[in-house]
Amino acid sequence: MRATVIHGERDIRLEDVADPQLASGDDAIVRVVAACVCGSDLWPYRGITPTPVPRRIGHEFVGVVEQVGVEVSKVSVGDFVIAPFYHCDNSCINCRNGVSTSCINGGWWGSPDQSGSLADGAQGERVRVPNADGTLVATPDMPRDDQIPGLLTLSDVMGTGHHAAVSAGVTAGSSVVVVGDGAVGLCAVIAAKRLGAARVVSMSRHALRQALAREFGASDIVTERGEQGVQQVKDLFDGVGPDFVLECVGTKESMDQAIRSARPGGRVGFVGVPNGGPELPIRRLFNNNVGVIGGVAPVRGYIEELLPDVLNGTITPGRVFDLTLPLGEVAQAYAAMDERRATKVLLRP
Amino acid sequence: MRATVIHGERDIRLEDVADPQLASGDDAIVRVVAACVCGSDLWPYRGITPTPVPRRIGHEFVGVVEQVGVEVSKVSVGDFVIAPFYHCDNSCINCRNGVSTSCINGGWWGSPDQSGSLADGAQGERVRVPNADGTLVATPDMPRDDQIPGLLTLSDVMGTGHHAAVSAGVTAGSSVVVVGDGAVGLCAVIAAKRLGAARVVSMSRHALRQALAREFGASDIVTERGEQGVQQVKDLFDGVGPDFVLECVGTKESMDQAIRSARPGGRVGFVGVPNGGPELPIRRLFNNNVGVIGGVAPVRGYIEELLPDVLNGTITPGRVFDLTLPLGEVAQAYAAMDERRATKVLLRP
Repeated sequence: MRATVIHGERDIRLEDVADPQLASGDDAIVRVVAACVCGSDLWPYRGITPTPVPRRIGHEFVGVVEQVGVEVSKVSVGDFVIAPFYHCDNSCINCRNGVSTSCINGGWWGSPDQSGSLADGAQGERVRVPNADGTLVATPDMPRDDQIPGLLTLSDVMGTGHHAAVSAGVTAGSSVVVVGDGAVGLCAVIAAKRLGAARVVSMSRHALRQALAREFGASDIVTERGEQGVQQVKDLFDGVGPDFVLECVGTKESMDQAIRSARPGGRVGFVGVPNGGPELPIRRLFNNNVGVIGGVAPVRGYIEELLPDVLNGTITPGRVFDLTLPLGEVAQAYAAMDERRATKVLLRP
Repeated sequence: MRATVIHGERDIRLEDVADPQLASGDDAIVRVVAACVCGSDLWPYRGITPTPVPRRIGHEFVGVVEQVGVEVSKVSVGDFVIAPFYHCDNSCINCRNGVSTSCINGGWWGSPDQSGSLADGAQGERVRVPNADGTLVATPDMPRDDQIPGLLTLSDVMGTGHHAAVSAGVTAGSSVVVVGDGAVGLCAVIAAKRLGAARVVSMSRHALRQALAREFGASDIVTERGEQGVQQVKDLFDGVGPDFVLECVGTKESMDQAIRSARPGGRVGFVGVPNGGPELPIRRLFNNNVGVIGGVAPVRGYIEELLPDVLNGTITPGRVFDLTLPLGEVAQAYAAMDERRATKVLLRP
């Protein structure tokens, strides 16, 4: 089959690789119907994190089950399934505690599973899925083609935006500021509105993303950054700031913006993958009773909750995809996101 | 009157100072019935934070109202009152948001208020109380002498331990580890049990404090520190750690202990005054979805909630006082706490 391999900085290749095989009784083989490129894929693409040896890449996909191992009972051949951006047994103590990203038997796409067999990367034609019963969620019916982008967001960005809002503890009637206008930040706007936030502010300088944030329910856009951005946000909320800030970038600057924008007693829900830091300023958190809660989003646990809203169109996170390319043009997909010509690129094998 | 003045490292003096006077219509003058020394008073005592000029000190007191300004309506001359470790109007937006420590019109004992008049330190005979209606809480009746220590803990340590538990979000049936066996840590054990925690572990190496922690409801004591302490705590809770950790010290080591002890998805409630640091390791928090929530405890808002339990003896936080001295021996009180001969010293003017 064909699958994407990253060889180094700005070196993305679609290559012929071995077809995946069932390696264990709880595996499934899934034919990828749609995959995509994540903002976090840009770290190795840009060389910010090194790629010492070529490796498979991609961690978001939906598809159709082609084979199942003898122990698999919850998904069947022919099912349309959503995969979270990791695999997990959905039954260990950490999964039961709602933190399936810390699954004791779990792992990451494009890496060996705990028995040493490769769990394929998602930017390819097929994926071997370990822990298939725990990992995959089947849709009730075969979705229409126009539903695919929305379903694909449940693999990562919609669940991750939701995790920012859930971690912060967004409540009905509350005030929310979202730092970051990438796909996750835009989905965080959806999530905050869906949880009942009265007013959601998007921090964005990009006209198309501003428009999408408004479509998703943002009432205000703040374009300033740094001290001026903090002041503008505080001014919108009684001079003290919003109840909740959702940090969806992961840089030192964005986390600083988030922490300084929250009102005393406010909460920062953070899901941006920390880019080598920053360490958090405990004295500022302490003095203002600003809490920081979040992390790598356990989206597997959110799929069932969000799926009906996506299928019936109550929420439309699939709108974050503004470019669709065939898998053969995966290198162009990375370039488009790197150059911010696209918010998020959907790949069709 | 006589009041305590700190002149520098290990230089605590009881001095004759001016009697406090009403400076504003919303002031009250309170005769101090009991005050105490706080663990945080030891930072300047030990010279860790400098004392460039002599200043009044002490921030915990209960007493009897002697005078009130013309605008004061909620407390009356003769009332027995509890003061939080700061003053606040209890009506500004931050107070309404539950963060009275960030009161827009508030301030600290031993420092000038916002109009420039001194709000006396608590380790003295009398205190001018700004924002008296917002700050003071009167007891229903004149308390018995044996109730005084418990009431005095509502000024700081009991409310602060409670804040650690509330910030972390301790729930009924949950597992809790308390880092720190000082007065706040011991009160955090009380608070966690009071909120329904099923199992509370106290990290303590001090026999008398261990005994008090058990009296307050701790089921287990962990004496190890560092990596071994983390492992011992994880072993007590399914190998993954407790739901909640209450950090009640404020050093780099204790916060590190707290963050590393929590299970994936767990929450650290922190109330130890950060001693010049540490910055928090965001990558560890992110990878494990460990949240950090807390700060300077808005105890004013907790007094009414905790007061009935203290008055009827349901909780006995006054047991943290293991030494009572006359105000004239305030220097000995500091020395006893500095040398860990006493957990917390009560002062009687």
